[in-house]
Amino acid sequence: MLSPRAGIFVRRWLSAKQLVYSEYGNPSKVVRLETISLPDTPPDGHVHVKWLGAPINPADLNMIQGVYPIKPPLPAVGGSEGYGRVEKVGNGVTRLRVGDHVIPAKSGHGMWRSDGHHKEQDLFQIDDTLSPEQSCSIQVNPPTAYRMLKDFVDLKPGDTVIQNGANSAVGRAAIQICRLRGYRSVNVVRQRDDMAALVDELKGLGADEVITENQLAREYRGKIKDVKLALNCVGGKSTLLLASTLGFQGCMVTYGGMSKMPLQVPTGPLIFKDIRLTGFWMSRWYEVPENLEERKHMYAELSAWMKAGDLLPPHFQKRPLEEHTEALEAAAVDFSKKQLFVP
Amino acid sequence: MLSPRAGIFVRRWLSAKQLVYSEYGNPSKVVRLETISLPDTPPDGHVHVKWLGAPINPADLNMIQGVYPIKPPLPAVGGSEGYGRVEKVGNGVTRLRVGDHVIPAKSGHGMWRSDGHHKEQDLFQIDDTLSPEQSCSIQVNPPTAYRMLKDFVDLKPGDTVIQNGANSAVGRAAIQICRLRGYRSVNVVRQRDDMAALVDELKGLGADEVITENQLAREYRGKIKDVKLALNCVGGKSTLLLASTLGFQGCMVTYGGMSKMPLQVPTGPLIFKDIRLTGFWMSRWYEVPENLEERKHMYAELSAWMKAGDLLPPHFQKRPLEEHTEALEAAAVDFSKKQLFVP
Repeated sequence: MLSPRAGIFVRRWLSAKQLVYSEYGNPSKVVRLETISLPDTPPDGHVHVKWLGAPINPADLNMIQGVYPIKPPLPAVGGSEGYGRVEKVGNGVTRLRVGDHVIPAKSGHGMWRSDGHHKEQDLFQIDDTLSPEQSCSIQVNPPTAYRMLKDFVDLKPGDTVIQNGANSAVGRAAIQICRLRGYRSVNVVRQRDDMAALVDELKGLGADEVITENQLAREYRGKIKDVKLALNCVGGKSTLLLASTLGFQGCMVTYGGMSKMPLQVPTGPLIFKDIRLTGFWMSRWYEVPENLEERKHMYAELSAWMKAGDLLPPHFQKRPLEEHTEALEAAAVDFSKKQLFVP
Repeated sequence: MLSPRAGIFVRRWLSAKQLVYSEYGNPSKVVRLETISLPDTPPDGHVHVKWLGAPINPADLNMIQGVYPIKPPLPAVGGSEGYGRVEKVGNGVTRLRVGDHVIPAKSGHGMWRSDGHHKEQDLFQIDDTLSPEQSCSIQVNPPTAYRMLKDFVDLKPGDTVIQNGANSAVGRAAIQICRLRGYRSVNVVRQRDDMAALVDELKGLGADEVITENQLAREYRGKIKDVKLALNCVGGKSTLLLASTLGFQGCMVTYGGMSKMPLQVPTGPLIFKDIRLTGFWMSRWYEVPENLEERKHMYAELSAWMKAGDLLPPHFQKRPLEEHTEALEAAAVDFSKKQLFVP
């Protein structure tokens, strides 16, 4: 917007902060904070969003490392998930209004920032009565769990789902959605010192079983069977164990590879039990235009669960953008809480 | 049939030979030849089949070893594939006639025998103008290749199919069906001394590329891509290489596990290329009643190809049932030709 002053038009500017990287590498080394100026008024068809919170997810680190299939042009703003409030709408904006809460419509838009001007169609409106923590976690992890539990096998209450990496953000969402849908969940976690506390916590979320890989290989061997769906974010030998629990026409869905090892899959169940393996990538699902209505339905269901306290967000550690080095270092090693930028 | 002689009825008997096993174990050790007597006339609803040829397939050995999911009651007659001629029909037989050529309708009926009385519905009629070698190979291997090339990916002429174990009976059938359908086939075989002869032979069948696993891992690395379908009968690291050649939404079908190692599957293509893995078991396909019409269609197409010389049967080494020890020993180690019992 141009405003008259002393006979000339002066464009007003606002100052915005963002975390950018200009080269691929170790995130805590290559990401830097920069301050930019944004015109006071968004261009036609755009809205000004004040971004209020954005987590560090594992895929964000991979993207900065340059090992992720989505490679935005450099320099790029980091982060794929975040929520904000519409502050101003430009001409020609038809759907969004000031005060609406939004998240990015797709991945890779760069969410670690305080402000941005965004095309209306690049934003997706969410329920503005969600808490900040709920708003910051509705885009990536609970939807991943939701879709994997819905799109691959026709699960019925009482059916068994097994997953590894059960302590991850997706894993915790899967535990809770299984509980809400009446599926039995068997949750495989890494051996750790404070095992009893983790078992208690995950059982508190609704986990039916919480066991280590070793337990699954030994005392539980052959006891967990006829599993309909296995969720894998680990790979390696873990998938051999998970696949062996699948029943006839069971399905394993892979959404991560934390061990950095190839999946191991037994031949017999593939042939004789007709099991199948597939992958799931939330970002691609969001790219499919036909999924828009189902996305609205899913968000309505997830929001209702969240607001009722039935689906808890991850543990977050809030950080200002200025603490990016500490936050990115912590995100790479401490999986007990998720780092959350609060610009 | 009872015939009057000297005022009493005397049932006539015929002598039949069969290869049986009474315990699971090393096939060449536990299989023995026995001679039994069969009534001269088949029971109601049964036909007397003179079995004319039955190969030794790998699954037959696994069944005798007791490591196969189909476990007929012991003692059992070995062999799952074979063809014969209807010699006599019992009362109530409606479909089959003397002179018809038949194969078993399903797996596990015990085909290493000279004669048997079989329920009409346990037999499937084949084209009686096929040669003995063609008749002996129409039930298991070419149909496995045919279905894997038809049921999992919508292949179009020019599409690329990759397979390991390309020198197996299924592999050779797959090469020829790819040629007939216009698919490009990349065929991975084990390194061997007479490599050039094998390459020539498989190229003679229509193979577009014949390479070793090492070549695929090295000089062909990254050069074979956008593959639509991978056929796997090996497992282990071979599947890692095959999976890496698959394009977006490519599919790997596993029908065997010759390496006896679990499949190794890369995580990235599962998630980001949406590849999928499944298995195929011909025996299960034959169990599905809804597949009967498609089976007739498939056999008509396979038979036409065979009779035109476009789909060659495997190299067979013919053996009388009496040579069962030698035949079973050879089948376990010599994959250059298939052992064929000719009762």
